[in-house]
Amino acid sequence: MRLVTFTLDDATPRLGAQLGERVADLAALAGAAGSDLPTDLLGLIRAGEGAVDAVRDLLGRAESGRPSGAVHALAEVSLRTPFRPGKIIGVGLNYVEHVAESHRSLDTDREVPDRPVLFSKPATAVTGPGQPILHNADLTKQLDWECELAVVIGRPAFRVREEDAWQHVFGYSIVNDVSARDQRRSGQWFFSKGQDSYAPFGPAVVTADEIADPHDLDLSLAVNGETKQDSNTRYMLFRIPRLIADISSGVTLEPGDVIATGSPSGVGAGMVPPQFLQPGDLVEATIQHIGTLANPVVDAR
Amino acid sequence: MRLVTFTLDDATPRLGAQLGERVADLAALAGAAGSDLPTDLLGLIRAGEGAVDAVRDLLGRAESGRPSGAVHALAEVSLRTPFRPGKIIGVGLNYVEHVAESHRSLDTDREVPDRPVLFSKPATAVTGPGQPILHNADLTKQLDWECELAVVIGRPAFRVREEDAWQHVFGYSIVNDVSARDQRRSGQWFFSKGQDSYAPFGPAVVTADEIADPHDLDLSLAVNGETKQDSNTRYMLFRIPRLIADISSGVTLEPGDVIATGSPSGVGAGMVPPQFLQPGDLVEATIQHIGTLANPVVDAR
Repeated sequence: MRLVTFTLDDATPRLGAQLGERVADLAALAGAAGSDLPTDLLGLIRAGEGAVDAVRDLLGRAESGRPSGAVHALAEVSLRTPFRPGKIIGVGLNYVEHVAESHRSLDTDREVPDRPVLFSKPATAVTGPGQPILHNADLTKQLDWECELAVVIGRPAFRVREEDAWQHVFGYSIVNDVSARDQRRSGQWFFSKGQDSYAPFGPAVVTADEIADPHDLDLSLAVNGETKQDSNTRYMLFRIPRLIADISSGVTLEPGDVIATGSPSGVGAGMVPPQFLQPGDLVEATIQHIGTLANPVVDAR
Repeated sequence: MRLVTFTLDDATPRLGAQLGERVADLAALAGAAGSDLPTDLLGLIRAGEGAVDAVRDLLGRAESGRPSGAVHALAEVSLRTPFRPGKIIGVGLNYVEHVAESHRSLDTDREVPDRPVLFSKPATAVTGPGQPILHNADLTKQLDWECELAVVIGRPAFRVREEDAWQHVFGYSIVNDVSARDQRRSGQWFFSKGQDSYAPFGPAVVTADEIADPHDLDLSLAVNGETKQDSNTRYMLFRIPRLIADISSGVTLEPGDVIATGSPSGVGAGMVPPQFLQPGDLVEATIQHIGTLANPVVDAR
């Protein structure tokens, strides 16, 4: 399933499932069927597999049984941030080519890391599809992009072994790990990566059963239609099971937490000469089978 | 007021106010008075000043009017984590002497930073008074302590000026910024400081009106009764208004967010030879007018 959060004219966030070019309002379907569902995506994730099965069941019923007004044309709704994660753990330097470009252009090590390099973005950094990335020229001259596969955690994970890790994955989405490269502080990335709007997230959460191999997904990013990043998740240095095992060796992952699994090469800081985002730019992060997360950059001084 | 979260035998968390050696159950007081209060401390903080005034009003009424069973001896309750913060932003290298000892013993810069050095700890790292700090010898040989004044945010803050910053402070508490020094990853502190139980928090949240000058508070930390840190918040490099202005220049601070304002010298890594926490140790972090946050270190392999 492709789960989304959407609004109609009244701006109330609604939990939906995208069906091709249409979006089903799950609360409306559940109401008509006399069943009970969480009203938002985080609630659905936390409710566990029974709730997800109930959604599948609702969607599997004959179209003729759907109440009028429960299904909207995709073009008529606005997709929103899927949900507000509990925490977002980012993985730095997780594609080999990106390690090299980061070493050339930033202050990171030349060597490929022997353990995942972890940082975090706060929930206040999250923004949704189509929402602006805030460009504050008083704070940064080096606003940069990073297209990343987002792993959405479905079950609590603490000290999970690699071979059990997949059981804890609810699904996948996209995070654009926006960074103000000149706002690192004594090497720490929190402020450079944690500002409001620096975690565009969406446009959908695709449940794990729909992604045959999360390590065979093309991912790319374009600025104003020009491709900057173009790679495949098979080139991740530390793969998803290793990331879950490593993080959960010390940090509990909870349902609704997100792991942003790192970015391939092609970030602005690595270009010769460097290229950074400017107000008016449009950034489009695309991952195969998930979709495109598009965000305009706006002057927010 | 000294606001606490406590449990009785039934383990249900209750919102309380500490009155010397007694703890008032605020839900019980409110129920008897026919008034309505949030049932937990995060709810109270989010509800704003009206709710806090209502608590003051309840506590100000004659003792004779309090229902029996609404006030407990402090010794008969268990204090718990005051609340689960939305985010915890830590400030590194915020006391001059600690900058020097960190440079000698760790990989940090020699120079005093010209901007606050920010990092974060996830909410899953929080633990309460008396609860164990988890020592996993498979992960770390360098578990260390840092006593810090915690600033609890009361009102949303985005692009707040220093002169307006105090209006956004709800109150103060203590965070022990526990760190596994050997778990930094390419210099990033998230995993070394973000593991479960690495943010002991409490024992109380003291409202801002009760702290005449948050920059004149003795703070100290003892391990097994032996003083390791002993300083005063007047020695902070970046003071609270500057921290709030700086963080909120890019990151929205929300009610219930916590800023851990940095630690003075006297951490284990800075000792000659270095000293680190071991299972069986008792760590006591004390801040004047706030109290003592005591946590045992336990073997959690």
